[in-house]
Amino acid sequence: MQVEIITIGDEILIGQIVDTNSPWMAAELNKAGFEVVQITSVHDDAKQITEALELALERAEVVLFTGGIGPTKDDITKQTLCRYFGAELVFDARVYADIELLLKNRMRAINELTKSQAMVPDKAVIIPNPVGTAPITWFDNGGKVVVSMPGVPYEMKRAMKYEIIPRLQQRFQSQSIIHKTLLVAGYPESALALKIADWENALPEEIHLAYLPHFNIVKLRLSAAQDDYVSTKNEIDRQVALLESILGDAIIATEDISLEELVGRYLLVTGKTLATAESCTGGHIAHRITTIAGSSAYFKGSVVAYNNEVKSSILGVDEDILNQYGAVSEEVVKQMAIGVAGKLSADFVIATSGIAGPDGGTNEKPVGTVWIAVGTKESVVCRRFQFSLDRQLNIERTTQTALLMLLESEVSNHYPLTPP
Amino acid sequence: MQVEIITIGDEILIGQIVDTNSPWMAAELNKAGFEVVQITSVHDDAKQITEALELALERAEVVLFTGGIGPTKDDITKQTLCRYFGAELVFDARVYADIELLLKNRMRAINELTKSQAMVPDKAVIIPNPVGTAPITWFDNGGKVVVSMPGVPYEMKRAMKYEIIPRLQQRFQSQSIIHKTLLVAGYPESALALKIADWENALPEEIHLAYLPHFNIVKLRLSAAQDDYVSTKNEIDRQVALLESILGDAIIATEDISLEELVGRYLLVTGKTLATAESCTGGHIAHRITTIAGSSAYFKGSVVAYNNEVKSSILGVDEDILNQYGAVSEEVVKQMAIGVAGKLSADFVIATSGIAGPDGGTNEKPVGTVWIAVGTKESVVCRRFQFSLDRQLNIERTTQTALLMLLESEVSNHYPLTPP
Repeated sequence: MQVEIITIGDEILIGQIVDTNSPWMAAELNKAGFEVVQITSVHDDAKQITEALELALERAEVVLFTGGIGPTKDDITKQTLCRYFGAELVFDARVYADIELLLKNRMRAINELTKSQAMVPDKAVIIPNPVGTAPITWFDNGGKVVVSMPGVPYEMKRAMKYEIIPRLQQRFQSQSIIHKTLLVAGYPESALALKIADWENALPEEIHLAYLPHFNIVKLRLSAAQDDYVSTKNEIDRQVALLESILGDAIIATEDISLEELVGRYLLVTGKTLATAESCTGGHIAHRITTIAGSSAYFKGSVVAYNNEVKSSILGVDEDILNQYGAVSEEVVKQMAIGVAGKLSADFVIATSGIAGPDGGTNEKPVGTVWIAVGTKESVVCRRFQFSLDRQLNIERTTQTALLMLLESEVSNHYPLTPP
Repeated sequence: MQVEIITIGDEILIGQIVDTNSPWMAAELNKAGFEVVQITSVHDDAKQITEALELALERAEVVLFTGGIGPTKDDITKQTLCRYFGAELVFDARVYADIELLLKNRMRAINELTKSQAMVPDKAVIIPNPVGTAPITWFDNGGKVVVSMPGVPYEMKRAMKYEIIPRLQQRFQSQSIIHKTLLVAGYPESALALKIADWENALPEEIHLAYLPHFNIVKLRLSAAQDDYVSTKNEIDRQVALLESILGDAIIATEDISLEELVGRYLLVTGKTLATAESCTGGHIAHRITTIAGSSAYFKGSVVAYNNEVKSSILGVDEDILNQYGAVSEEVVKQMAIGVAGKLSADFVIATSGIAGPDGGTNEKPVGTVWIAVGTKESVVCRRFQFSLDRQLNIERTTQTALLMLLESEVSNHYPLTPP
């Protein structure tokens, strides 16, 4: 069974907000065994909404709308769907009571705008929304289903999880959709494709392969949608095993996780700690690591030494070395690493020093020159990189590369780590 | 002139990635005077791509594709567009030379897959992509334009900025779209709307007002699309002056800039320096500050003291105070601020300590409890906040609030700072 998502709102089409609802919905629908065919974003415009709906119904059995059902004048989804389905807006006393209760709990009184949310289409099933004033409407039409939900992410998510997906599963046959993602390090995308070409050519037709490069990692995603879950799962497992025999340690994870999460897992299982000394990354590595819940168990902290004084005074980098070699050098990044290991008593360390740009480059060390050190107090590996001219990109690439170098170092004894 | 965006890739429709390209493109197109009518995301599927293109061309003059032009088998956009436009793929020696050079700079050799990127449609204008192997193709067809770009964000952004938007502006008439954004602090959105209601009601019809709340800032955007640039500009300036007389110091900037950029400007003009001591923000404040080019002139660095030992050993927080009040307390955050001011010899400091979650909350200090300190070595202001249950949101909110507290402190003598 196929689904389409239509998101409504001018703010999407003028680039004021990033639509994070659709990917969340798509991932949840996939897990439940439904395929998303298309995602469409349109303005708060009756003609556009109607046309998008008509086209979506030609391709899919289910159309899910988000957005455009607030109480203010600019929101017109409800009225537009009523016109499309020939429905009338009628007052719903149960919805009214829900809204009254919700506002009371928020210490607010109902007013004429919030009251108008209790006017609902007479031809739709009305699904309560206990966390917002706009109810969810479910139209059943010639065997197809059209649902209109709020655009507020937590209201939409609650509705999807507890109401829409269970009802879709009851109503439609769902397939077993299996996605398996492998993280591969050490190969540019095209070299990886050549390396596994024979394997890829021999893949059974029902398994689809996708390459998703991200800096120095390529994500390989195997997907299959089949009626028989067990045999599909077995076939995917068999193919992953074949890939492992071709790629070996280049496969650094057998699931879709971030490098900071992978680093965190190794540190957790080994009971080791990490600290960073950052110059050109300016705290970005520490930030990435601390986005992971529970990172306080293994992350000691960071010294962001943006200034040379700080490199000397806190990290103990030798001033003569700084003067002789400059801040962006093997000698300095090594001393930063050793310094932070001592100061923060961490088992593993990462240090960075580079010229993020756009200014500060020289002939010898152009913008994008970066030194990264990873290791322990006793043993540090340093590497020089030449990244790009773009400041933001240099920060991100340095972070990604440093995390990968840490994973390739002794922090892990072998790849891949089986998920706990 | 109207534009549609079509993003291609299974990864979007299974929710593996969030499409951040489209909002960025939409915002840039708007600035350049072009309206985006619809954004459509489809699978790597020839039939779907073709149908989406046909429909888009019925509604818009320009269709911009991103994604699906990598060298691997799953990417089929180029072949699909060739079939649609009746074009042949031909070898382009200039593109080949570009690819060879790019790969050489990355210390890689060309292989048969990267070489295949030099096969380009004979009916398209080929626009070089100096930061990736896939060139940009521009089809001109019956007065309408179809462009295919890489999905890799920095490749797409570079192409849009330096090639596509300038060419569209040359080719199509764009209106003078004037956007003027004011940053307002200290008012929730609805309170701000009430405060300026009389002014808003008296706005000339050609000026459109939008409210964009972002944490504790509301961006007010005045927009006008007119043929006569000068009189529109004058009218917007007059309205801004009126708003300034109503809102006074609550307007912290009269252009659309980030708080870290605003902080940077104050520090630059006053010749002062900044350092941070971060616990719950884990380096995010330092990261935001160092995304600004030239920040090394005023940012000394940060001590990310994720661990209590580090708070004592490096920042000099009294262990008795830590034990008595806990790390998330006024006393500790104050000592962190004073400690980092001394250690890093900075004029201004920010310190944070809080429970980002999802674990670690107590009855007294639930998840979302955050202490922020800002000031100088001599005088520190501390405030307690109760944010949300969401870790990522707590980190971002704390950062945003801390930067705003710094702006409200003595770092600036008055608002707003006239852009240099």
